[in-house]
Amino acid sequence: MSHVNLQLLAKELKLSIGTVSKALRDSHEISPETKKMVLDLAQKLHYTPNPYASSLRRKKSNTIAVIVPEVADSFFSLAIRGIEEIAQSKGYHVLIYLTYESLQKEEKILDECKNGRVDGVLISVSSETNSVTHLQDLSNYNIPIVFFDRTLASIKATKVSTNDFESAFTATNHLLQQGCRHIVYLSISDRLEMNNNRISGFQKAIEEQHNLALQHQVVECSNDAAESEAVITHLLTGPNAPDGILASVEKLAIPVYAACEQHQIRIPDDLKVICFSNTAYAQVLKPSLTTITQPATEMGKTAATLLFKMLKKNPSQVYVESCMLPSELQVRASTAIS
Amino acid sequence: MSHVNLQLLAKELKLSIGTVSKALRDSHEISPETKKMVLDLAQKLHYTPNPYASSLRRKKSNTIAVIVPEVADSFFSLAIRGIEEIAQSKGYHVLIYLTYESLQKEEKILDECKNGRVDGVLISVSSETNSVTHLQDLSNYNIPIVFFDRTLASIKATKVSTNDFESAFTATNHLLQQGCRHIVYLSISDRLEMNNNRISGFQKAIEEQHNLALQHQVVECSNDAAESEAVITHLLTGPNAPDGILASVEKLAIPVYAACEQHQIRIPDDLKVICFSNTAYAQVLKPSLTTITQPATEMGKTAATLLFKMLKKNPSQVYVESCMLPSELQVRASTAIS
Repeated sequence: MSHVNLQLLAKELKLSIGTVSKALRDSHEISPETKKMVLDLAQKLHYTPNPYASSLRRKKSNTIAVIVPEVADSFFSLAIRGIEEIAQSKGYHVLIYLTYESLQKEEKILDECKNGRVDGVLISVSSETNSVTHLQDLSNYNIPIVFFDRTLASIKATKVSTNDFESAFTATNHLLQQGCRHIVYLSISDRLEMNNNRISGFQKAIEEQHNLALQHQVVECSNDAAESEAVITHLLTGPNAPDGILASVEKLAIPVYAACEQHQIRIPDDLKVICFSNTAYAQVLKPSLTTITQPATEMGKTAATLLFKMLKKNPSQVYVESCMLPSELQVRASTAIS
Repeated sequence: MSHVNLQLLAKELKLSIGTVSKALRDSHEISPETKKMVLDLAQKLHYTPNPYASSLRRKKSNTIAVIVPEVADSFFSLAIRGIEEIAQSKGYHVLIYLTYESLQKEEKILDECKNGRVDGVLISVSSETNSVTHLQDLSNYNIPIVFFDRTLASIKATKVSTNDFESAFTATNHLLQQGCRHIVYLSISDRLEMNNNRISGFQKAIEEQHNLALQHQVVECSNDAAESEAVITHLLTGPNAPDGILASVEKLAIPVYAACEQHQIRIPDDLKVICFSNTAYAQVLKPSLTTITQPATEMGKTAATLLFKMLKKNPSQVYVESCMLPSELQVRASTAIS
């Protein structure tokens, strides 16, 4: 079977392409009889309109882009699930782009989003992202953008986040209550708003306990698991090793557990650990891992809902509607009092 | 700034749209002077061609679809990484579609792939997929398809797989050598070729040891973690509990470890466990998990390379070029002799 297009339908019915096209769009210019004839043949031959031709006519692609650093992360895979659910209910396609934490890749992807391929963009920026030019530029092309989870403080835009400050504050207080006196925050990037809010919450909790002799530290880790493990091993085996760790992202849990295993550091006896993480492995690790669990699917749904709201309005206008959904501290064995 | 398109360039330069379009495509009909003028302005105004208009002209979308059951799985996220690497080197876009193990969703996605949105398809089918109609139909639209990891025996097509039979055979022999005498294979779907090859390898290893008094069983699990945990708990706490488990997919490791934890079943003393899995958590589980590690990134790269090869040839022809890449047994503590 050759591809069924307007030309073929027109030829079969001995009509002009314009007439067939109008009939398919239910135009008042075409008689009911002709419409029926065209629709019957279109159905019989399984005609489906070319999306790019339709998109050019309607100046809409019915596609949104989701740009995330990676998919090998429970938070992002759950957020994508939420986004897809909303997009599907609106009859939209979802293009998933991965930056692998590279600013250069992110810039290239956003460049490709400008030229009509997508109607709107949902993004969680890379850990390298430190400038906003490539992000702000989209509004010049009437393409709305919604940030979720990873945003930049310096950009005014619609953002969906979680209560990073309060979550880190609560987690740090939990470590203090469990007896920790030297807590380290493992950071992933000092450019991300979410990471900096978590650092502020961490520091605020430490400062409030000025009657205690506390030590605290922010230690920068890497996107590479082996590099992070080296940093963490150096930290945990040094002369001034901490007794509590608050890890900022899911992928830091594995190097922490691996370093402890290798150097006979007992969790929770020698070191108590909390990680911002949505992984299902938290419950089966030994000891099971205390986590700050983010409302990942809900954040995806909310971000998509806000984007569709913007698409219905004037997309060239920059809306600054922010939404914060609460995370939850799930206490498990890695922070138990020994 | 309004959107820069051919119309705007033509207006600014007082040329026809056709002339501008031809100049941008470096047509011999246009003088070098005019070409330079057009290109200079296009560069100055950051003109990028509308991909849908270009796609209609060239009858190519420069986009391939990757259809997978989910991304919350290390195998699929690593395979996507391999596919993206090859696609990027060819200047192609990658559309990622998720079926969430639903045949209905898979059929809908393939329907959308037919109408020119993509030039080719890479697919790992859902566990519900039992018919080939929606998959074979693509070739009627001149769209080549390559299957990777999860394929159907009943379809003749280009397939990239791993040595499932040998891997399960090797894994079962390892369990036998470590002293297991009652081994259960945890299955995910009896429709998938890869799963059935693994079952055959498992059974072959058992049959070869006819001098030993062995018990073996294939137990069907679910895509839902809680349901799988109920099935596994029933199995492990019943009167005839196995002493060895070979789990067919990554997501079954968590319910196995959770059930053992809850019912004081000691791994590896009471039960030895092997799982087909690429998860980085394998090394930090306690005990660390013996895995069959698939060459996920390589499989993605190979599948994409075969697809681009097909795109260069006549895409309406069905190529049956198969490729099998070996997996590796990584022995860890979950199968140690106690």
